[in-house]
Amino acid sequence: MKLAYRMADPTGLCFGVKRAIAQLEQALANNEKVYCLGSPIHNPQEVARLAQKGLLVVSEVSEVPDGALAFVRAHGMAPRPLEELKARGVSVIDGTCPFVRVAQSRARELSEAGYHVLIAGDESHPEIVSIRGHVSGSVSVVSCSTELSDFAKIGRIGIVSQTTLPESTLAAIVAKAIGLASDVRVFNTICRATVERQRAVSELASKADGIVLIGGKNSANTRKLYQIATDQGCEVQWIEEASELERSWFQGRNTIGIAAGASTPDWLIEQFIHAIENQS
Amino acid sequence: MKLAYRMADPTGLCFGVKRAIAQLEQALANNEKVYCLGSPIHNPQEVARLAQKGLLVVSEVSEVPDGALAFVRAHGMAPRPLEELKARGVSVIDGTCPFVRVAQSRARELSEAGYHVLIAGDESHPEIVSIRGHVSGSVSVVSCSTELSDFAKIGRIGIVSQTTLPESTLAAIVAKAIGLASDVRVFNTICRATVERQRAVSELASKADGIVLIGGKNSANTRKLYQIATDQGCEVQWIEEASELERSWFQGRNTIGIAAGASTPDWLIEQFIHAIENQS
Repeated sequence: MKLAYRMADPTGLCFGVKRAIAQLEQALANNEKVYCLGSPIHNPQEVARLAQKGLLVVSEVSEVPDGALAFVRAHGMAPRPLEELKARGVSVIDGTCPFVRVAQSRARELSEAGYHVLIAGDESHPEIVSIRGHVSGSVSVVSCSTELSDFAKIGRIGIVSQTTLPESTLAAIVAKAIGLASDVRVFNTICRATVERQRAVSELASKADGIVLIGGKNSANTRKLYQIATDQGCEVQWIEEASELERSWFQGRNTIGIAAGASTPDWLIEQFIHAIENQS
Repeated sequence: MKLAYRMADPTGLCFGVKRAIAQLEQALANNEKVYCLGSPIHNPQEVARLAQKGLLVVSEVSEVPDGALAFVRAHGMAPRPLEELKARGVSVIDGTCPFVRVAQSRARELSEAGYHVLIAGDESHPEIVSIRGHVSGSVSVVSCSTELSDFAKIGRIGIVSQTTLPESTLAAIVAKAIGLASDVRVFNTICRATVERQRAVSELASKADGIVLIGGKNSANTRKLYQIATDQGCEVQWIEEASELERSWFQGRNTIGIAAGASTPDWLIEQFIHAIENQS
């Protein structure tokens, strides 16, 4: 029996990650080793595939040898470690997502204009680390509006957001910030791909009898899709690859929704669809 | 029997209105007639008192005779009618509240910087008419966030607010605006007097067995105090002067709260307290 399924639309790889992986693949085609600070994509299966082609994931700048070739992933990097690499003769291929670059520039502009920069997002996420690194003045990172409760009044607050933040979270943070400063400037740096993918999952959750979500367990944007669907009372099976599928889960469900994180490569989605179309 | 009562703190006349009335009183002491475009204060009793001293309230610029003396009330005026008066040799005493002047300047600055100006407030309120008059470019007025639902995406939105708007209303409007533009600049031009008076009424509503609210029925800020208290389930008797008091209303209430609008003169509050302290 074939299972009826419905894909979230749009879903899967976003423009920024697709672009970065293409750059990395090209670099790997022309070079034996390419160093990347942190995983180039929050998907273990894709990283394993790229590692076979010569990708070396390191966690510290010091692990990149002098004169080597380094790749800056879509999340971007703070200027200081990047300068350190260049000073040691490391060639750099910059895969920073253009939307993350906008957030970096806006944060720097706000700081230079005298604003206290407030970054809405997850403090430990590499994208936020990279954005924060572009601010030389005073800066704070908050992941939700309640974290602003302890803030004293500040003259001017300039806000940018993680590109994958739900718009409602940014809205709540901004709503709170206007009580803290008389001049609040907000650059909504959430990328459309994120907004559209979150909207698509929300729509799917209202129609399907359950959603299979394909994406790295270390992917923040996939976790947000998971939350959005479960918050609507939709059951979600979050898997990294087709082999994890619990087939019993499909019983009694008429229409299954399929969605994938913005860092889930197409081949993993195709592998999954192949698996469910050929299940006995 | 004396009634136990408790005053909202702060309450009554705000700095801007107090200042404007003092300017007007001085003008009336030195001149036989002073023209004012619209009521100088949204309180009929106070306007009647000032009328006896020579105040003439007119509704159109054309009603002010050439060479007369005109007074700009705390709400301010748009530049065009003001220039028209001056061109006709009318002397002008400017009683614009300094906080309203900030909102006017911010709106003009935002417009000159290329923002679509969004004024949060009541379109027909004289303060909003005066602020709007300072914008030469594109401008919209919205009183609540739902009015933004029909808005198309706009490149840049610059927001200022009516000085008496509840902060929660501005917050909701700003939260919605960040979905409409990637660059949103907010000048929170709500004055502290408003915030503090609204907070004081909210606190009083939670403690008193009912509130007597003294203020003009045509006063927007008094209406907001009324809403804040009733939204908390507190019964409110809204009166303009002591003579309107329904004494039966006091029966069975232990602690009465007293609050007044930002346009309610002190003598009306004193008159009321005198009345309840001397009731039999």
